[in-house]
Amino acid sequence: MNTFSVTVLGSSAAIATPGRGLSSQVLRYGPELFLIDCGEGTQFQLRRFKISVGHINRVFISHLHGDHFFGLIGLLSTWHLLRRVKAVDIYAPPALEDILKMQFEASGTVPNYPIIFHPVTAESPRLILDHPQMEVFSLPLTHRVPTTGFLFREKPLPRRINPESIDFYNVPYHSIEALRHGKDYTDATGRVIPNAELTLPSPASRSYAYCSDTAYNESLVPLIAGSTLLYHEATFMHDRIKSAIEKGHSTSIQAADIAEKAGVKQLLLGHFSARYDDLHPLLNEARGVFERTMLAEDGTTYPIE
Amino acid sequence: MNTFSVTVLGSSAAIATPGRGLSSQVLRYGPELFLIDCGEGTQFQLRRFKISVGHINRVFISHLHGDHFFGLIGLLSTWHLLRRVKAVDIYAPPALEDILKMQFEASGTVPNYPIIFHPVTAESPRLILDHPQMEVFSLPLTHRVPTTGFLFREKPLPRRINPESIDFYNVPYHSIEALRHGKDYTDATGRVIPNAELTLPSPASRSYAYCSDTAYNESLVPLIAGSTLLYHEATFMHDRIKSAIEKGHSTSIQAADIAEKAGVKQLLLGHFSARYDDLHPLLNEARGVFERTMLAEDGTTYPIE
Repeated sequence: MNTFSVTVLGSSAAIATPGRGLSSQVLRYGPELFLIDCGEGTQFQLRRFKISVGHINRVFISHLHGDHFFGLIGLLSTWHLLRRVKAVDIYAPPALEDILKMQFEASGTVPNYPIIFHPVTAESPRLILDHPQMEVFSLPLTHRVPTTGFLFREKPLPRRINPESIDFYNVPYHSIEALRHGKDYTDATGRVIPNAELTLPSPASRSYAYCSDTAYNESLVPLIAGSTLLYHEATFMHDRIKSAIEKGHSTSIQAADIAEKAGVKQLLLGHFSARYDDLHPLLNEARGVFERTMLAEDGTTYPIE
Repeated sequence: MNTFSVTVLGSSAAIATPGRGLSSQVLRYGPELFLIDCGEGTQFQLRRFKISVGHINRVFISHLHGDHFFGLIGLLSTWHLLRRVKAVDIYAPPALEDILKMQFEASGTVPNYPIIFHPVTAESPRLILDHPQMEVFSLPLTHRVPTTGFLFREKPLPRRINPESIDFYNVPYHSIEALRHGKDYTDATGRVIPNAELTLPSPASRSYAYCSDTAYNESLVPLIAGSTLLYHEATFMHDRIKSAIEKGHSTSIQAADIAEKAGVKQLLLGHFSARYDDLHPLLNEARGVFERTMLAEDGTTYPIE
């Protein structure tokens, strides 16, 4: 089974703190690295946490508040300076395309590598990437500017071979792949052995839902239901719910409430206001609602399984 | 006399290294802080070196290569988030104005404080700021895109009072300020005491010349002649003079040669290629031509006196 994990590069909202960088994460699926959001300094965090920037081929930007994208032009420029040739696909709000172009033009830079821009709008959930092993959907969020979350969902995995029955029916090697995909097996005498006798059910597909930035929004629940790991912003503790509502953010308890309603396996909180030094009170508050909650920490990798 | 010094925030060219950030400096003159260039991460370096960002009221950007300005939009946004109200004056290439505007618009941000944009073009040296105690001139540099250096020159200082002759002639306190500005003194009997008997010559005016990025360019020499401190880029050692010429940069020896020809008091080298770990060979090379040479080091403050 492919490795599936997320590494947090920055967990601070709006203003970085000495211990927390601005929003950015690296999602790893097998050999592939996807970058999600890219606040100022993301390229320095990638280097600090020894993540090979050259392996990132896709970038997803949730919205155009600076703490989520001001680092992108620097990363794209560094790739150019490092003589990257592989294309980069960028999934982002439409206005970002001209912002990047304008800065490349001002610096007289024509990147060595293709930048393929995929405008993502926030109105309704859409399939934005159909990757051989994974589908990526946009998730409409509720914020002060158009904002989308992202749902990364593994495609249904093949069924698992049952080694004992394979031996018993003496199935030849070249027939195995068809069994994984649900086909029955017909032996040399013409007898049909049903697939269910030869295989075990597929392992469950894993999924990662990234929801930042957003106010409390129950219409997210059906879209992320059953996710393996939900990252949900928790800018404030619940005593600041008034600020959260005003600014289009969520509290720790609201994030936990969404996780509970969506029946996710685990919840990862992030996008913390710079006002908090110690985040444990925030964590405890959320755990009161949804026990399987974790705090995002810069440089930490969270398995999705 | 006012404090006059420069603190290096970043000394790396193009790509940051673990020990060297991207181009940015803080010039301190008395209570005023000017920011010169602002590569990505400058706001983090300011915090790291405990420089109060709220005291910066003027920003000078030499050119629109990313390593000199990608950090500006983040700093301006942070000021907005910190509820700054004081205006900021930005002296920069004209195209920067729209780049900043576009990013503020995309994020739906109207800064709380006025941003006063002063377009600076690179054709000829100009007085770009006439400050009560200092004049700032643009310096045309020779690079791949339009680039200006900056000369910060203290205005002529008042003459110094000679305490002994003040006592001798019994000059009252209210007449002292006029003496500083070169006036003669007329005593109660109508007798005129010449200024030169009551004062000592002004201390020499100090100046800081910032020259990054630039190829070797002797037409700079008369513009920066006699500067107290010259910051000159030295991207490469002299064995890479071919790269320097191709890329519009200077070698250590070329920088020292300009310092020698301009008869400056001290030379500060910076904008080092990420290829160099140890910079001492580069320093030694420059000192062979101009002895009073120093290396720019992130977080170090260099007095200008």
